[in-house]
Amino acid sequence: MVQTIGQEDVMKKTIAGMLFFITLNAFAQGLLPAWNEGPTKQALLSFIDKTTTEGSPEFVPIPERIAVFDNDGTLWSEQPIYVQIAFTFDRIKALAPQHPEWKTTQPFKAVLENDIKGVMATGNKGLFELIAATHAGIDTETFQSMVTHWLKTTPHPRTGRPYTEMVYQPMLELLAHLESRGYKTYIVSGGGIQFMRPWTEMVYGIPPERVIGSSIKTKFEVVNGQPRLVGTPEIQFIDDGENKPIGIQERIGRRPVMAFGNSDGDLEMLWWTTAGKGPRFGMLIRHTDDVREVAYDRKSSIGRLDKALDMAPEKGWVVADMKNDWKEIFPPKK
Amino acid sequence: MVQTIGQEDVMKKTIAGMLFFITLNAFAQGLLPAWNEGPTKQALLSFIDKTTTEGSPEFVPIPERIAVFDNDGTLWSEQPIYVQIAFTFDRIKALAPQHPEWKTTQPFKAVLENDIKGVMATGNKGLFELIAATHAGIDTETFQSMVTHWLKTTPHPRTGRPYTEMVYQPMLELLAHLESRGYKTYIVSGGGIQFMRPWTEMVYGIPPERVIGSSIKTKFEVVNGQPRLVGTPEIQFIDDGENKPIGIQERIGRRPVMAFGNSDGDLEMLWWTTAGKGPRFGMLIRHTDDVREVAYDRKSSIGRLDKALDMAPEKGWVVADMKNDWKEIFPPKK
Repeated sequence: MVQTIGQEDVMKKTIAGMLFFITLNAFAQGLLPAWNEGPTKQALLSFIDKTTTEGSPEFVPIPERIAVFDNDGTLWSEQPIYVQIAFTFDRIKALAPQHPEWKTTQPFKAVLENDIKGVMATGNKGLFELIAATHAGIDTETFQSMVTHWLKTTPHPRTGRPYTEMVYQPMLELLAHLESRGYKTYIVSGGGIQFMRPWTEMVYGIPPERVIGSSIKTKFEVVNGQPRLVGTPEIQFIDDGENKPIGIQERIGRRPVMAFGNSDGDLEMLWWTTAGKGPRFGMLIRHTDDVREVAYDRKSSIGRLDKALDMAPEKGWVVADMKNDWKEIFPPKK
Repeated sequence: MVQTIGQEDVMKKTIAGMLFFITLNAFAQGLLPAWNEGPTKQALLSFIDKTTTEGSPEFVPIPERIAVFDNDGTLWSEQPIYVQIAFTFDRIKALAPQHPEWKTTQPFKAVLENDIKGVMATGNKGLFELIAATHAGIDTETFQSMVTHWLKTTPHPRTGRPYTEMVYQPMLELLAHLESRGYKTYIVSGGGIQFMRPWTEMVYGIPPERVIGSSIKTKFEVVNGQPRLVGTPEIQFIDDGENKPIGIQERIGRRPVMAFGNSDGDLEMLWWTTAGKGPRFGMLIRHTDDVREVAYDRKSSIGRLDKALDMAPEKGWVVADMKNDWKEIFPPKK
């Protein structure tokens, strides 16, 4: 396109004016009240505005408005341990009377002795053994009820609140705001799909078909003339690291426009998302608040945030600092 | 609940009256014009009406309105061969100059000699080799463009029409009607997701995230500092038979309310769907029209419809007979 300098100038001014108007507009609406005013909130709101405002040069059509969220540590608390691990430990304890051999076999022994370090020392292999022992052989509908019942009856060990209230209020607001702007929100988590789906719709407004996660293999069987789907002890997919973009491509079939995470396990998801053409947005959540949450930041034994944080400036990923950027961390008690 | 006979009678009459009204209503609207009037069309329309009419005793809330469709032979023609196989053959021919060894190696030799029987004789193993040779090593976005280009430039061998017009008009109407009634339609096909996704939205109104299919494994790699997803020659999932309900559970996480198929590969999907509690609907499409399509019915070498047809009466599945139930088979030429 041949253009004189004068035309370019006019264009730049028009776009600048449009963005200024969009930003003003977002602030005036009092959106995302649990986020403190500042560049992080502004980056979020301006991006959403410019990609959803008709006529904006970075407008994204509704079917392509995909936003993906890690779950543990991004949408809800992952401290002191992943909630699914807490559930799995409780299941092991409940099943222990039928398995006397567990008293002397790792990783079961460590679980029964509440020795979390001992469990962690058995590594991924140990965790998978625990998951297989507790998740397999159960049909999908029964497993769902077990999760729902456990969440209703088990308080968070530190706060005494239900785990489903240990979710981040600023992220709940963001999910709702994105939905209201035609974005489809997805969970892309290392957690198990079977563990997440029973409650994500109620808690986050994210229906089961928009939950991507790790899974065990399922088999089809006919019992008493009735078909059912039953978990097997075999791992099917670990939805972490490089597998996150792979899982997204496989399930959604489109590159997301926005991606949110809080650990190096989210690095490839953010990278692949923001490497796409057109407007893209990546955000990392830093756990920096030792008073209202847990300040583990880069150093946690679970979900390290290290490489991704180092890459953030070069890739243009926005970093949300929980202590400074979040006015509220958890929703008010019900 | 204690109830006198009189009350029950009144209730039955009310429900009967409601259903009669619903049915009348559907006919009055002139819905599904490419379906002939009769019990098949009536079964479809009454089921959709009773599950989507507020106050109906079999009302299904919107988030649970899931309808799954096989693709080949259910939504579009699978004759003379699966369209994806035609695409794969053309790719093999295009790549042949770089692979002189294919001239003497099966299954490639058979493809290059247009010997379809020879290819089929190599079985699934041969087909997977062909798919691996043509689909692997290509990043997902490039593959998409190749499919789109091929569909634009390749006519159906028998009719000369684009493959994307060899779709069944009655099913297009049904998909649109279901969407208008709050049903989410999904494709659950033995075909490859990468092959289907580039065109299902345009042709059926089914977006990529609602396409479930067979897939090869994908890997994440970084080339010149850019992340990309690339197909590998390894099969990940064959979405056929018992794997259809497994794939549905894995991707959607809800049991569908309606399921449509045309072969024994759809048997488990229909069975699992209709074994759920509450209103469920299964339909088999019989290929019985030798004038307007191909009358292969039970006997085809691909996609046999045998066991499922035998099970249909007991399971209450509705059988649509293309010759008698469909007024039109294909959409008018563009």
